[in-house]
Amino acid sequence: MKRRVAVIDATWESDPGRHRQVLEAALREAQTQGAELALLPELIFLPYFCQSPSREPFAWAEALEGPSVTLLARWAKTFGLVIVTSIFERRTAGVYHNTAVVLERNGSLAGIYRKMHIPEDPGYFEKYYFTPGDLGFVPIDTSVGRLGVLICWDQWFPEAARLMVLAGAQLLLYPTAIGWNPDDPQPTWDQELEAWLTIQRAHAIANGCPVLTANRMGFEADPSGQTPGIRFWGHGFVAGAMGEYLLPPQSDSVGIRVADVDDRATERIRQIWPFLRDRRIDAYPKLLTRAWDPDPKK
Amino acid sequence: MKRRVAVIDATWESDPGRHRQVLEAALREAQTQGAELALLPELIFLPYFCQSPSREPFAWAEALEGPSVTLLARWAKTFGLVIVTSIFERRTAGVYHNTAVVLERNGSLAGIYRKMHIPEDPGYFEKYYFTPGDLGFVPIDTSVGRLGVLICWDQWFPEAARLMVLAGAQLLLYPTAIGWNPDDPQPTWDQELEAWLTIQRAHAIANGCPVLTANRMGFEADPSGQTPGIRFWGHGFVAGAMGEYLLPPQSDSVGIRVADVDDRATERIRQIWPFLRDRRIDAYPKLLTRAWDPDPKK
Repeated sequence: MKRRVAVIDATWESDPGRHRQVLEAALREAQTQGAELALLPELIFLPYFCQSPSREPFAWAEALEGPSVTLLARWAKTFGLVIVTSIFERRTAGVYHNTAVVLERNGSLAGIYRKMHIPEDPGYFEKYYFTPGDLGFVPIDTSVGRLGVLICWDQWFPEAARLMVLAGAQLLLYPTAIGWNPDDPQPTWDQELEAWLTIQRAHAIANGCPVLTANRMGFEADPSGQTPGIRFWGHGFVAGAMGEYLLPPQSDSVGIRVADVDDRATERIRQIWPFLRDRRIDAYPKLLTRAWDPDPKK
Repeated sequence: MKRRVAVIDATWESDPGRHRQVLEAALREAQTQGAELALLPELIFLPYFCQSPSREPFAWAEALEGPSVTLLARWAKTFGLVIVTSIFERRTAGVYHNTAVVLERNGSLAGIYRKMHIPEDPGYFEKYYFTPGDLGFVPIDTSVGRLGVLICWDQWFPEAARLMVLAGAQLLLYPTAIGWNPDDPQPTWDQELEAWLTIQRAHAIANGCPVLTANRMGFEADPSGQTPGIRFWGHGFVAGAMGEYLLPPQSDSVGIRVADVDDRATERIRQIWPFLRDRRIDAYPKLLTRAWDPDPKK
């Protein structure tokens, strides 16, 4: 059936009250436009603190029963929306995760996903902050379908998308925080953005499964001053089961946009291009290796 | 180092002598333009006979020591080119493969790859003709590097590209025969072509590895008259290690085009986007399954 979904690219507002106001208004608008699901960017209630390694941000981590999930639950119930985003989860002392949370429309917690692939680059010190997820690639059942929720860096890994779909995901969702190095030239910006759009659309194509992405927007300075900061690039989008844009990416859209996703398209496309039928599962064992050396000559 | 590669989209010419002349001229031009490697489409010496199931085409299958490889070897030596394409291999009575052959510049056979993922659709009855490959995803060492040669339908499977790269492939190559249903409307044509370009560029991105594709061109009728035939769509291209076009796809280019591929880009891109470092090989075992049912609730 057709379901209306909302993608909300969001800029970090340093005033927490103002930040919540903006998000709440976007969710209200999503409801007004008839959406049943809203996707927000990664780590929605925090600045992107991973730009430098520092002990201070650990104080912002919270339990799944903490104020972030409580607020999201209230919004989900108020606006009748399934809401997807990620929080900085404190699981126990010394174990912190980047955790996607999925709130059901009645305000209950439908499920969580702990980010499995953790980046570590200048400006993205996530291996310092986040313990790798240990829940695997398990979709979350909701009133709008079985959701394959992944987070940001996961979007570069075809394995993650495939595993979610093999487990029955009907939508792939990527709450994301990715941007440009302000010092890089425009051609690099263009190439990075294009690669990011391309690989996510390819997950839709390879799996015959729609993809939703919401990204942060705007500039955030590096508190350490060691890097030039990050210009988050927005460009959230919705792709259909052939990778076609149902909602094209835009750089300057603040707030919320909606698209209609029809899960009958998945059935149809997978009959036209039955890739799942033809996977050579007998010949994939080496996907479980880091790298291997074949015989140089057969 | 930089290597010049040639992509040759080719139209099937029903006159065998004329067909060979056209191909030979294209390879000579590749040499003139300084190429070291030439990629030709799938099943280069035959019409695309898989449009309908019939016993007759089995008579065209031949051994690896047969006339097709012999001719390719002569061309490889004459023009000093590594040549990649596929043939209809008769391995033994009742076992026929769609087999990629890689000819070294001295005319020797550097290696083969037997198509692993076999399609079966109206107009593409390949499961009828081709026994699935049993050599796995093993790259072939040549004087121009370690080549990850795959064939057509393989291009829709991220697993195939990944396995070739984990085994050290420095280039991914897709000899291909794909086209439009003449009865489909233009938007379907556009969407299919765009999906095909997108997923192959995504293999470059996911793996930090350049991709070369050469496709058939022109219309070929279905000898059985049961389908409207296939309009092969050309659009061969070369993508760099970030998925950027080094040689953009073109619909109307007959013959040969060249691009320069620099393998130092792979090293650099994989340092910027170190996806291979971060694969969760501990969490991928279910990639070896057809489909699975997770616990509906954790």
